[in-house]
Parts: sequence; C-alpha cells; structure tokens
Amino acid sequence: MANSEFEYTRFFEQTDMLLPDTWIVVRLDGRGFSKFTKRYSFAKPNDKRAIDLMNSAALETMRGLVDLVVAYGQSDEYSFVFHKDTQLFERRAQKLVTTIVSTFSVQYALQWPKFFPDEPLTEPYPTFDGRHVLYPNIQTMRDYLSWRQADCHVNNLYNTTFWAMVNQGGQSPTDAELELKGTFSADKNEILFSRFGINYNNEPEVYKKGTVIYRDLSESTRPLSTTSPLNGTTKSSASPNSGTTDPAANTTSTSETAPPSKTQLDKERKRKLKATLVAEHVDIIKDGFWEQRPWILAGKGARKGSE
Amino acid sequence: MANSEFEYTRFFEQTDMLLPDTWIVVRLDGRGFSKFTKRYSFAKPNDKRAIDLMNSAALETMRGLVDLVVAYGQSDEYSFVFHKDTQLFERRAQKLVTTIVSTFSVQYALQWPKFFPDEPLTEPYPTFDGRHVLYPNIQTMRDYLSWRQADCHVNNLYNTTFWAMVNQGGQSPTDAELELKGTFSADKNEILFSRFGINYNNEPEVYKKGTVIYRDLSESTRPLSTTSPLNGTTKSSASPNSGTTDPAANTTSTSETAPPSKTQLDKERKRKLKATLVAEHVDIIKDGFWEQRPWILAGKGARKGSE
Amino acid sequence: MANSEFEYTRFFEQTDMLLPDTWIVVRLDGRGFSKFTKRYSFAKPNDKRAIDLMNSAALETMRGLVDLVVAYGQSDEYSFVFHKDTQLFERRAQKLVTTIVSTFSVQYALQWPKFFPDEPLTEPYPTFDGRHVLYPNIQTMRDYLSWRQADCHVNNLYNTTFWAMVNQGGQSPTDAELELKGTFSADKNEILFSRFGINYNNEPEVYKKGTVIYRDLSESTRPLSTTSPLNGTTKSSASPNSGTTDPAANTTSTSETAPPSKTQLDKERKRKLKATLVAEHVDIIKDGFWEQRPWILAGKGARKGSE
Amino acid sequence: MANSEFEYTRFFEQTDMLLPDTWIVVRLDGRGFSKFTKRYSFAKPNDKRAIDLMNSAALETMRGLVDLVVAYGQSDEYSFVFHKDTQLFERRAQKLVTTIVSTFSVQYALQWPKFFPDEPLTEPYPTFDGRHVLYPNIQTMRDYLSWRQADCHVNNLYNTTFWAMVNQGGQSPTDAELELKGTFSADKNEILFSRFGINYNNEPEVYKKGTVIYRDLSESTRPLSTTSPLNGTTKSSASPNSGTTDPAANTTSTSETAPPSKTQLDKERKRKLKATLVAEHVDIIKDGFWEQRPWILAGKGARKGSE
Repeated sequence: MANSEFEYTRFFEQTDMLLPDTWIVVRLDGRGFSKFTKRYSFAKPNDKRAIDLMNSAALETMRGLVDLVVAYGQSDEYSFVFHKDTQLFERRAQKLVTTIVSTFSVQYALQWPKFFPDEPLTEPYPTFDGRHVLYPNIQTMRDYLSWRQADCHVNNLYNTTFWAMVNQGGQSPTDAELELKGTFSADKNEILFSRFGINYNNEPEVYKKGTVIYRDLSESTRPLSTTSPLNGTTKSSASPNSGTTDPAANTTSTSETAPPSKTQLDKERKRKLKATLVAEHVDIIKDGFWEQRPWILAGKGARKGSE
Repeated sequence: MANSEFEYTRFFEQTDMLLPDTWIVVRLDGRGFSKFTKRYSFAKPNDKRAIDLMNSAALETMRGLVDLVVAYGQSDEYSFVFHKDTQLFERRAQKLVTTIVSTFSVQYALQWPKFFPDEPLTEPYPTFDGRHVLYPNIQTMRDYLSWRQADCHVNNLYNTTFWAMVNQGGQSPTDAELELKGTFSADKNEILFSRFGINYNNEPEVYKKGTVIYRDLSESTRPLSTTSPLNGTTKSSASPNSGTTDPAANTTSTSETAPPSKTQLDKERKRKLKATLVAEHVDIIKDGFWEQRPWILAGKGARKGSE
Repeated sequence: MANSEFEYTRFFEQTDMLLPDTWIVVRLDGRGFSKFTKRYSFAKPNDKRAIDLMNSAALETMRGLVDLVVAYGQSDEYSFVFHKDTQLFERRAQKLVTTIVSTFSVQYALQWPKFFPDEPLTEPYPTFDGRHVLYPNIQTMRDYLSWRQADCHVNNLYNTTFWAMVNQGGQSPTDAELELKGTFSADKNEILFSRFGINYNNEPEVYKKGTVIYRDLSESTRPLSTTSPLNGTTKSSASPNSGTTDPAANTTSTSETAPPSKTQLDKERKRKLKATLVAEHVDIIKDGFWEQRPWILAGKGARKGSE
Repeated sequence: MANSEFEYTRFFEQTDMLLPDTWIVVRLDGRGFSKFTKRYSFAKPNDKRAIDLMNSAALETMRGLVDLVVAYGQSDEYSFVFHKDTQLFERRAQKLVTTIVSTFSVQYALQWPKFFPDEPLTEPYPTFDGRHVLYPNIQTMRDYLSWRQADCHVNNLYNTTFWAMVNQGGQSPTDAELELKGTFSADKNEILFSRFGINYNNEPEVYKKGTVIYRDLSESTRPLSTTSPLNGTTKSSASPNSGTTDPAANTTSTSETAPPSKTQLDKERKRKLKATLVAEHVDIIKDGFWEQRPWILAGKGARKGSE
C-alpha cells in the first residue's frame, strides 16, 4: 500500500493564485436566508439583533486577518477587502475565500445565543457561501463598495415603505408590491411621510447605510510615514488631517526608497492586531470617509507610485 | 445615489463553472489544528472524540447535498465527492466549495459540546479551509481517495509507533523521531510488537482506515435499473450481488435510451434524501468496496457509455 | 539598469496547465473569412482549392506534433485533438493553442500559391484564431467531433441547395433564403432533386463529410500491444480486425502492468513521426471509423482501466 | 444526424474573459529560434535583417488593431500592449492572443523574402508561441516593459562581448563563456574597449535598446483633451509639452464628466487607423519617453481618476 502509487492524483489540483497588486474582495451571502429569517421570525424590515450578529461575526473575522483593511455589510451579506499588497496564503483564491467563509460562519453560529438568547439554533443551521472579485485599482474597488451601499439604500427605502404599508397601513403584501412597482425614491419618501408620518431621513443610520468596519490607526497609533493611496486617484489629494497631525508626511518620498524591513513588517502587523476595530454606519460613497481615514487603504510604503 | 453608476463593478466577477462530466472533489483541512489539538489536549496518536466529531459533521454535510455521493475523512481532513453529473449551483467552483466549508464548519462548532462536554470552545474557534480538485474519470477519482487512505495508514502507523515509544517507552520525542527516520512499515510493526506487545493489525479500524460515508441505497431502496459505472473501468465488471439481487440489470441498455424525466429525477432526489447515511472504516482502495456498492458511483442512466 | 528591479513583473504571468488525463481539442477558425472568400472569389458553395489548402495546412500542422492523434476540418475551421496523455509543453494551454495557430497560419499563407497560383495573396492576409476545449473522456470528445461533422452536413446541404437556387435557378439570394427558412433536410433534398436533378447523396464526400486526418499505424507499423481505448466506452468493443491481425491483443493486461520505458516512448515517437498521415472524407460519427482504427485513440499502455 | 444531439459538447468550452480595467500584454517568442537562426546563418551577435523583419511584422500587427497602444521587441520576442480599456473580442484571452500570434506569424513568413531575398524559407517554417499577462496599473505594466528592455541590454552587452572574443579575439566559445562567467557590466565594457577598441556606447541603438512601436498622435493629430494617465503614477506629473501645446488640458475635468459618444469613439478609431506608426530605438525605462508622448497610454477620457 505504497503512498506513491496514488500520489500522482495531487497534480490534478490546479493553482489559483490571484493577480498580484490587485484588491481582493471576498463577499459572503447567507444561504437560503429568506427562509431562515422567517423560521426565526426576524423583524421586518430590519431585525436589529440579526444585524448586530452579522456585524459581530464580521468584527471577529477581521480581527485575526490583519491584511483585511475594510469590510462592509448590509442585510445578509458582507464584503471583506484584502489590501492589494497582501501575500496571505500566497494569494491562493480558494484558501482566502474559504478561510473567511469558515471563520464568519462559525462566529455567526457560536455568537447566535448572545443575540438571540431565547431562540436556540436548530437544524438546518445558517450557512454562508462566498466568492472573490478582483479590482485592479482603488477607484473600481471603492465603486464596488459604493455599489453595495447604494444597494443597501435602495433596498432599505423599499422595504421600509413596503412594511409600513403592510404593518401600519394594513395593505396586503401583493397590494403594496403592486403600488410600489415603478415608483421612484421621491414617491416612496412621500408615501412614508404623508401616510405614516415617517421621515426616512430619521431612520437609523445602520439600516440606511449598512456597516463599515476598519482598524482605527489614527493619531498616536498611526505609523510615522504613510503613503496616502489616494493621491493618485482623487482630485483632492490632501486629507483634512494628514497635513496637521502627521508632520512626517513630507518625508514620504524618502522613506519610500527602501522597502520595509522584516522587523518593520512584524511591528506593523502587531500594531494592526492591537488596533481597535471600528464599526460605523456612515457614507462610504463620497470621498470624505476615505480622505479622513487615509491609513485604511495605505500601502506598506514599498513601491513608489503604485496606488 | 443611483445604483446603476456603480453596478459596472459586478462585471469584474469572473465565472468559475467547472468542466462538465468530471468528478468534483472538495477537500477540507483544519486550519492550524496542530495548535488547536494541543490547546484541547487531544489524545495521541488518535482522539476518539475528535474523530467522531469530524465524522458527525461530515454526515450532516452530506445529508442535505444529495449530489455528494461519497466522503472520506481521516485526521483533520475530509474529502467530499460530487457525482460527475452534478449540476448543483451550475457547477460554480466557489459556490460548491464554500457551501461545504460553511456547512461543515458550523456543524463542527455546534456539535462540539456533544463530543467534548467538559471542554467549552473558546476563541480562536476551529475553522477549515477547502479547495476543489477535478478528476476526469472514476479511475483517477478513486485513486485520489486511495491516496488519502494510504496516507491515513502511513501516518497512523508512524504515529502509533512514535507515541508508543514516547508514552509507553519513555523515549524523548526527538529520540523517537530520530530512531524512526528511514524505517519501513515492517520495522515499525516490529517495534510495536517486540517492545510494546502491540499487534498493529488489531488497532481500531477507524484509525487505520479512516472513515468512508455513503448513502445506503442497497436492496429494497435501490432503483430498478442502475447503470453500473464500473463496467468500463475495472477488470471484473460484475459486482458480487448485482446479478442476484437486481434482476433488472439486464434491462439496463433499454432504460438508458431515454434520459430520466423530471419526475424520475425528483423521485431519485427524495429517495436519496431519505436514504440512511452509512459511515464505515473499511478498505476503499481495493475494488471490493465499490463493486459491492455499485449505486455509489452510478449515474442517472442518461448517457450511454460514459463512465 | 539592473534586471532584477523589474523582474518581479514576471510573477504576474499565471499558470494555465490543463487538467491531466483529459482530451485537449484546439479549434481554429478563419478570421473574417466571409469577407476574405469574397475578395478571392471562392467558388460557392464550396471551393475545392480552398479546402485542399486547409487540409494541406492541417496535415503539416499534425506532422511534427505527434501528440496530436486526430484532426477534423470543414469550411474555414479545423479541430486538432491532443491525446489525453500528452505532456507537451507541460499541458500549458496558451503554449499548445498558439503553437498550433502559428503553425497552421504560416502553412496556410506559404502554401497559398500552390493552390491559388493565379491569385497572389495581398493584405490583409488570412489569419486564424483558436481556442482549446477539454473533454474528460472519449465519449464527449467523439461527440464534439460528431457535432462538427453534423454541422458540416447541415451547412453543406443548406449551401448546396441555396446556391443551386441562386446560380442555377436564378432566384435572388433573399428569395432563396426566405424559401429555405424552416425547411427540413428532406425538403432541401427534394428541391435539389426535383428542380435541379441533383442527388445530394452523389455530391463529393469531401463537401458532405469534411476531412479527418490521422496517422496510419495499421498492420505492420502497429505496436505489438495496443490498449484499445474503446473497450470501456462502446458496446461492441472488438474492432473488426483487431482479433485477426493482432495476435498480441490478448496479452494486453500483462503489458499494462509496467509503464512504458523511456526507450519505448522514444521508439513510439519515431514510429509516429514516420507514419503516413491520412486524410479521409468519411463518417466519424458512427463507431465503425474508430473501431477499425483502434490505434488512433490508443494510449501508451501505461495505466490500467483508464480510458 | 440531428445537430442537437451533440451540441451539448459546446458547453465544455470555458469562458476566459480577462479582468476589466487591466492592461493586457501579449508576448510572442520565436519557437526553436536558436536552431532556426543557425539554419539561416544569422549574423552574430545581431542580424540586422532578422531584426528589421521582426519590426516590420510587428508594425503590421499593430496597424489593424487600434486597441494596441504600444509594442516592444528585441531578439526573437515581441510584446504587444492592449489599453486597459479595450473591449476587443470581449477581452477573451485566447481570442486576443491567437489573433496576434496568427497575424504576426503570417507577416513574418510572407515578409521574409523582402528581408532575406537570397534565402528562400524552407520547412520547418518559423513559428511563434504567445501568452498574455495582465498588469493592473501603469506602473507594473511599464515595469514589465522596462524588464524586457533591461533584459535586451544585459543580453546584448554579453553577446557583443562574447562574439567579439570569439570572432575577433579568436577565443573558443567555451573559453569565452568561462571568462565571462560572473563578470559585471563594467568588466564587459572594459574587455570590449581594451581588447577590441569597441566603445559599447557607440553600438547601434537598435541592438542596445530594442524597438518600441507606437502611433504618432502628437500635435495636430492629437485630440483636444487628453487624460494624461501619468498624473497619478509618476512624481513629475506634467509632461514637458502638455502645458504648452495643449491649451485644453485645463478643461480635462470638464470633459471627463461625460463618457465619449459612439460617434466620438468611431472618430477616435479612424484617427488611430490613419495615424503614422513609429518605430524607435530609445529608452522606455525612464519617465521621459512616456511624458513626452502622453497620448500613448491615454484613456478615452471616460472615467475620472482611474489610471
């Protein structure tokens, strides 16, 4: 029973290294969640417990993987962004995707009792599938995140209106759906306000904007010299506070000439592991979010001129 | 905030449909399990609780996915085999792999207390990564499974000997490792027997052979006409009982002329969902296992002559 | 100007090894040939010179690449089939495809004057694009070739009828197209026969069947022991002459136990290089063609049971 | 013989669309050219006729494919760069690569007599293989081209020295090779100068630098408003003449707000088809080349901020 006779079968496995220097997004989606949410009677249009659980699972997923620079979630989906410079698992696609899917799924399952103390999980258990998408530059990667946040807004406005019509207005779901067909945002805002006295703008930010998670590397915890990745891709390259709180910014070009040493990278890694993870419900479509937190997309300062 | 402005980013996602008519193996591996097993003081060389948990998680993973025809596990790894005819998720690689990884991971985490009642799971939680490998025919797919079972044997013989030397013989790990270097199976068997009175052949089958899981579709539950997939690829095409218990076998070629109808497929699916899942610790390298359970690799009888 | 500073860019090239043990088909198509054929006033529905040129280019393409076991061409397309065991260029997809495309294109261009002595090639020159398709077993690979030959038949019957209606019947192209819309084969045969006295069955085989090219390894040139790849996949496994001209066939299983030696492979290669290339216009959809030429798809006798 | 029975085999062909917004480089290499160059007694270290032929074939390859923005060649290799915005062939990898390989190969074969009038091509004919590599931004794509040009320099210095030692110095090839092993550029320059009176700097630029081909869209032929793609990726963003000869540059941001219309794109295409193709032997590693020809890498002005 020599091992070697069959070992040739390992060569059927194909490599799946992802293109270097490219942003890697891994998006998870709940499997069969419309059924699952009914089984556990999730509140409509939004169940705060369920969203808090998603965010908590995402936080723990980001904690150990320091090459994840930002995550964005809404509804039953979460997108995790690896920095384009990541070398984690040699950038092997399946390794990256399954590690995130496994970690997130386990966190969701084990943290469930904390958020749903009265509803023990029963089979079939909640699971998630995932996939990766590559974005060659900050612009397209940010546009991807903007797409998801715009999607959150569109869905939430629809759902808020729909469930107000059904729950408060007493319309049948079919009737509400029919009436909403073809309406614009303004129409839905008007329905909400005139019929139910709801000002959509006052709805909770977490429902309107979803959740963005990142490491807080601002101020004292920030590295001495950060390459702002935004210089190359936005019109206004100066972030509001980079000029004031980071006097070392002017030395950028000097520090860039040498790639970071092993010790520097280890230090950087440790700093990120210790950094506070922040979950916010804010606009990530406009430049402001990124300009005020330039470290999020910053690189390791190794290669001049690349974004 | 029109959705459409950013929607172009969805076209960066690339299709990953797997080659049709090809066996899809998804293998999971525990992430960082050498550390994890130490943290929970797994028994050496084998921890029965841990193996039972792996098998239980695998059983539940197979239960809902009827296109999985067989699974094989040993140590902290498990391989799941999709029939070459599967159209699940349109054969999208990441969807298939992440669904299995997510399901298995959640099962492992949630079933943990059943197998380790005295050791509550703490962070960092156990997780698994996964990947797919394609095998174009039964021969190579079976050789893959044989490779894993041969690997199980080689590792278990080594580990059994090593831990006997350390735990019973009082040798230091370094010393035991040094002595075992370059030894053959016969040498290890001899050490076990002469020094510790252990006859390796009497060790539990679950450790020596690992675990194979499949659906029991034998006898009454078997379909009337099964296309034996083995005719084309093994020397002895007749399985021992196919001639006796399945009088309809002779009508195979007739039934093959027409592809199965929608109703037939639904029936087949239900039959599989109801079928008992069997976990055995037996040799799957020799032909016997497959010949005695011809339904495991049998197809839907649709296409003549393909294996 | 050190080379090393920029050498990192080589790691952006991604491997594209094709799945082992799988038949590789490379199909070429003429680029913009409807325009090209007009420019050179190709005869309609078929231009014998053009088809002879295609076949001649294909013959030369096959000559040097002994891992190509069969090729099939019709109209401005040609499909080349690499044996599933080929290790040429480590099975790198682009290397395989571009080598064939380049060889075929150059042959077509340089042999042009031999077939079109009165029409010198002018810019833009004829070119071809190409792609690979994988087939996991003989059945699907043969079905692919059958698809192309069925396509040849369907197109040729249509074109023969259409051009008879236009050239002999004096119908306008639009009118002929309109009349043929929705007709079946029988209708077209009827039009050809009743209006133009053409019996389609008597049309040249090269137009009706296209061209299949293979190496003639029959009789004396055949190896002593050939693994018939057809045993496993067709109902009638015995080729008409294998039993009579190849007395060694019964020893197959013996010779299979050992993989072929380096010397044997070299000999085999030389034998193939010397073998006569045959171009025929025959049916390759039915089993007969393959059963009578079992060496075409035969393997190197290395692995038991694989097809 | 219905076509449909076999048509399922077309679904084995897998899509190979390349990541959007990414530079596509296609590199060709002569197959077995060390043997080929010996057969035709190419001059050593460089054969002017052979290089002129390569460049001429590359020029014709670029002529019809206006989405090719630049090409670089040396020795028996040529790299063609598609603009990251190209939608040619829906960015299908094999279609792009084989089209270039076929076009270049045919051009090389048919133009041969013009450059080697006394040496008719005989079998085996010269052929080329090819592959694509993706670069996610200008920096990495330029670094790729720099790598090839640095490679040209390193090889040419070595070859110039080696052949001087052999042809003029009378050393045996083995002896020359041995002496050159481990030497630096300075050593080779010294050997050339002290022994053979050759100042390497005075060697022809075409041998030292290779050949870069691009469309001359300067001055009058330049579009009114060009998005300089270099702003984001090089330290000195202003090209020497962009400020002076292009008064419309300041309006860039305005023109960028609207994507180009169909008519504009057609016009742009025609302009490029008519543009003179320029082949130069200059440094493309330093920024100067690109800054002085900002139109080469310029986009269609559609998307703000992307490079």
